[in-house]
Amino acid sequence: MKAAQYLGARNVDCREIPEPQPGPGEVAVRIAWCGICGTDLHIFHGHMDRRVTPPQAVGHEASGRVAAVGPGVEGWNIGDPVTVRPLDNCGECGTCRRGFTHICEKLRFLGIETPGAFAERWIVPARLLHRLPEGMDLRLAALVEPLAVACHDVRIGGVQPGDSVVVNGGGPIGMLVALAARKAGGKVTIVEINPFRLELAASLGFATLNPVEADAVEAVRKATGGSGADLVFEVSGSKAGALAMTAMARPRGRIVIVAIFPEPVPVDLHKFFWKELELCGARVYEKEDFDAAIALAASGELPLETLISKEFPLEELGKAFEYAETARDAMKILIKCTEG
Amino acid sequence: MKAAQYLGARNVDCREIPEPQPGPGEVAVRIAWCGICGTDLHIFHGHMDRRVTPPQAVGHEASGRVAAVGPGVEGWNIGDPVTVRPLDNCGECGTCRRGFTHICEKLRFLGIETPGAFAERWIVPARLLHRLPEGMDLRLAALVEPLAVACHDVRIGGVQPGDSVVVNGGGPIGMLVALAARKAGGKVTIVEINPFRLELAASLGFATLNPVEADAVEAVRKATGGSGADLVFEVSGSKAGALAMTAMARPRGRIVIVAIFPEPVPVDLHKFFWKELELCGARVYEKEDFDAAIALAASGELPLETLISKEFPLEELGKAFEYAETARDAMKILIKCTEG
Repeated sequence: MKAAQYLGARNVDCREIPEPQPGPGEVAVRIAWCGICGTDLHIFHGHMDRRVTPPQAVGHEASGRVAAVGPGVEGWNIGDPVTVRPLDNCGECGTCRRGFTHICEKLRFLGIETPGAFAERWIVPARLLHRLPEGMDLRLAALVEPLAVACHDVRIGGVQPGDSVVVNGGGPIGMLVALAARKAGGKVTIVEINPFRLELAASLGFATLNPVEADAVEAVRKATGGSGADLVFEVSGSKAGALAMTAMARPRGRIVIVAIFPEPVPVDLHKFFWKELELCGARVYEKEDFDAAIALAASGELPLETLISKEFPLEELGKAFEYAETARDAMKILIKCTEG
Repeated sequence: MKAAQYLGARNVDCREIPEPQPGPGEVAVRIAWCGICGTDLHIFHGHMDRRVTPPQAVGHEASGRVAAVGPGVEGWNIGDPVTVRPLDNCGECGTCRRGFTHICEKLRFLGIETPGAFAERWIVPARLLHRLPEGMDLRLAALVEPLAVACHDVRIGGVQPGDSVVVNGGGPIGMLVALAARKAGGKVTIVEINPFRLELAASLGFATLNPVEADAVEAVRKATGGSGADLVFEVSGSKAGALAMTAMARPRGRIVIVAIFPEPVPVDLHKFFWKELELCGARVYEKEDFDAAIALAASGELPLETLISKEFPLEELGKAFEYAETARDAMKILIKCTEG
């Protein structure tokens, strides 16, 4: 089969490799589409060489159909449309035992610690499959995984109908968080500096703020009757965002850390004290978030199509990575792995 | 009457001033004892001149007896033993309307924005009085206010029986938080660098860690079976504490910010994401925390006596402040305002 393998920093190559077969408890998925995640770009940049094992295909935002079923697997048939929740937990650590298997202390992330879905075929544990509704567009189904992230963020944040919500950062995840928060009843403002993303956010009906052009903290204060926002999702990963989040939240407001901050940044802990703010981190998703994301994506109620910027064939994964890192107007980029 | 007034940075003077009378809805309390809070020291150092109005008595950790009752006040008699919850909220801001009157957006803190209790008599709104059990030692009752802070912190933190709890910082508030957390069923470790405080903590039966002598993060990890603590109270207000808190907490663990951080400090937001940590700020107390603190102090189950380091007469408040800022072995310092 063909697999677009990561070979080392800035080096991917689409090669013919032996077709992998599912072992006990495993399933082979013929991949239709696989989206590029920010994490895949980090890998491409060579920043995650401690976790990947070149030559290795990466990729985990996949949709496809069951192609082969390993020994002992029940309930799945060839051709079933599926997506994959790519979290292989140990089941034994303290965190798994407390029920938080998605942040298992020994988590193996499929497509990072194991071979991934930028390939014609992906071998995964059957227990991590999620069935897609018959007739669902497999192209849009490649957005289920990032949408599940957003569903998890919004659930952890506890968005209530009528809540004033600030999403700081309007990239693909920020935009999905905004959509999921609005679906939960939130009145959402997106804070972003990229003009293309600001325009896209506005075209989707969101209030927008550009902190380069105006005092975003003051604007949020005014828009919320002086108190501040009920909820702030920090998706920018910026120093400015880490300081703005505490200024934007109302007393007893809630902040969700969605972004990945590579190193400690200054945070105004006095505002946590003074306003009794709450902050929580939200990472990946739990099973129910994946189910929610599938239902939401299949409902057709979200403008997911609008978030797809460009498609590349499997052979051009390297070119797709380069496009993703340079194009100012790139949102979600999909790789077409097979005809589906 | 006599009042020990703050006149300006490092300048207090005990003077004879006209005896104040209670207005409508107010009560005069004859103060028996009033403790020195860290905030009073900040005032003494001249750091809070925007909030105080010299010449002004400060002080808010008070116990005493009702001495006079203003027009319209019902339910209180001369001689009733009381303490005062010194939070005068506006009742109209968004935060009051949400029910969080203790962090009112226009809060007046009695003894900061209004005259305080380092005096023979203190005029306070009757609605902020809390009745003390007859026979309760008024000297120990001066510790109700800081104990209410600790009860609030422990309630916000949600300490459950069996929880592993780290209290980072073993000053008066840290020690009270540790006592309240243990009372709630927590297994408490106090992290502190001051040898006197470490010894005191150990004498009260707490596990202790000195981060200067050993890797406290590693010690907490080992003591909790590898996962980390269920709960971390950050009471040190130090940069080291702000970094250690995220390292010490287990996945899905909880951190409570008790300390006052004067400026933003580096915080490892990646650990919030990775371990889905929760953080919340806790400020002062609500009515129920004050009630809990009175019941706890009156029960005699806490070694409050051990936390009282020294007593000074009202005339020597300046000397008491100087003692508080220099003595390495100072915990709670009480001012005797009248014979009670």
